[in-house]
Amino acid sequence: MTRPSDPLSGQAPTLYEVAPRDGLQNEAASIPTAAKIAFIDRLSQAGLPAIEVTAFVRADRVPQLADAEAVVAGITRRPGTRYSALVPNLEGLERAAAAGLAEVAVLSASSETFSRRNVNQSVDESIATCGAVARAADAAGIRVRAYLSTAFGCPFEGDVPVERVVALAARLADLGVFEVAVSDTIGVAHPGQVRRVLTALVQVLPVDRLALHFHDTRGMAVANVLAAIDYGIRTFDASAGGLGGCPFAPGSSGNVATESLIYLLNGLGYRMGVRADEVAAAGTSLEPHVRGRIVAVRHRPA
Amino acid sequence: MTRPSDPLSGQAPTLYEVAPRDGLQNEAASIPTAAKIAFIDRLSQAGLPAIEVTAFVRADRVPQLADAEAVVAGITRRPGTRYSALVPNLEGLERAAAAGLAEVAVLSASSETFSRRNVNQSVDESIATCGAVARAADAAGIRVRAYLSTAFGCPFEGDVPVERVVALAARLADLGVFEVAVSDTIGVAHPGQVRRVLTALVQVLPVDRLALHFHDTRGMAVANVLAAIDYGIRTFDASAGGLGGCPFAPGSSGNVATESLIYLLNGLGYRMGVRADEVAAAGTSLEPHVRGRIVAVRHRPA
Repeated sequence: MTRPSDPLSGQAPTLYEVAPRDGLQNEAASIPTAAKIAFIDRLSQAGLPAIEVTAFVRADRVPQLADAEAVVAGITRRPGTRYSALVPNLEGLERAAAAGLAEVAVLSASSETFSRRNVNQSVDESIATCGAVARAADAAGIRVRAYLSTAFGCPFEGDVPVERVVALAARLADLGVFEVAVSDTIGVAHPGQVRRVLTALVQVLPVDRLALHFHDTRGMAVANVLAAIDYGIRTFDASAGGLGGCPFAPGSSGNVATESLIYLLNGLGYRMGVRADEVAAAGTSLEPHVRGRIVAVRHRPA
Repeated sequence: MTRPSDPLSGQAPTLYEVAPRDGLQNEAASIPTAAKIAFIDRLSQAGLPAIEVTAFVRADRVPQLADAEAVVAGITRRPGTRYSALVPNLEGLERAAAAGLAEVAVLSASSETFSRRNVNQSVDESIATCGAVARAADAAGIRVRAYLSTAFGCPFEGDVPVERVVALAARLADLGVFEVAVSDTIGVAHPGQVRRVLTALVQVLPVDRLALHFHDTRGMAVANVLAAIDYGIRTFDASAGGLGGCPFAPGSSGNVATESLIYLLNGLGYRMGVRADEVAAAGTSLEPHVRGRIVAVRHRPA
């Protein structure tokens, strides 16, 4: 087994906070815009370096995020925090640009069935869309990250071949996105699989253009991050309070909790400048709106 | 960092199932004896190689386990499964022997305050008790495992020095117990700490005399097992459905779920002959008695 990097070598990891988008898109409750804004501001004040604050999607598809413009207009931008939003297409990019965001995320998938159900496009069509968005974003001076969904398994098709994931990640990287977030949309990945996928991925992409996005459906997410650290990966998606899921992926559950990753990474000796207790408090502030959905993770101060 | 062993080298791990004891001792509900017996029989039928079925303790201290004799008498012993019980003293050992058990577990701790509150003895006194039980058990042909509680942190004293853990583990091993279960009673351990503790422990004890016992309070337990596998540890405590905690340890929560460890270890390529779906079904069968306490872990067939 290859372990190219020692956990304490290289830079401290970057946590990419997805709760305001990946977390709240999956909540049945309609959360007041003011509560979202306060939540995001608490997350940035906790020291998180990157926050995906919403998605510019069709309100009839994801009514939970219909207030995207109001959310972006309402937050207080903290110097040192990057703010991003998911944009499924050129229309979304135009809305994000109009809202004054300097970073967006686009979406592709590793399996045809999920791609059809999630974005109503084939995988090839979704990559073409990502490319069109990436070109327009580049012209507008906006940075683009790309999600590669269902990279560790599809809720409809099951196993996804490693070679397909590697090939799709390379195609997305070739579009000029700054990083590809290889995503376990439904939370089936385990550390053995993470090692196999990363052994192949790091052959074709530099580690600083890869991020990993884990859901915790089977309780493997923290262990998966531990496995990935050994391969030099240094960007991990996480969600305050463990909120999350995917409305178009049956069986998915919450993203890995940001608090848990801070505890893991601090314990490995990394100092990231993110306060776990403040992240936890931000998550808890949403509890009245998402009753019972906040992961009860305990903390020492970061 | 030292990584003495490759995950796929050496023997397949042994799961030591603790839900009937460590899980149910912490439940407020009084669970019918027949439900416990059916639960244990489902666990053995799932292929688990070792089950701690109860504790022979004072009914006024742990009323949840007052039916210890009836539980042991009622279960159907599956060839290939070891059955054990916790015994805090010679009286407990006598009851276990009378019940026909060939294996027991004794209890010590890494911190004075917890030892006082848990067994009403100093650490030295508890080790003396372990020694007395071990000698009597040896004379009776009964195998003994020793727990070393609060080895990664104490709910009253906080941090526990690694040197103390190593010294106490060695003292327990010298009593002739077949293994020392180094235990994170309150779930504060993280993989960085596991690596530090194991780096020291494997200098003084062979890996096949060490077991690890993790609670999942902060979501680190699966990652801790992944870290420990790299050090050659091959016995891990786990609890079906993630039941557990400690009535005398404030802030503790459930043991790592057996289903999660099966998923992790199968994913690493180990074949243990334990059926995760059957373990999950056993846990779910208790749900009416421990409402809301079963970890919802999803599985592929093992």
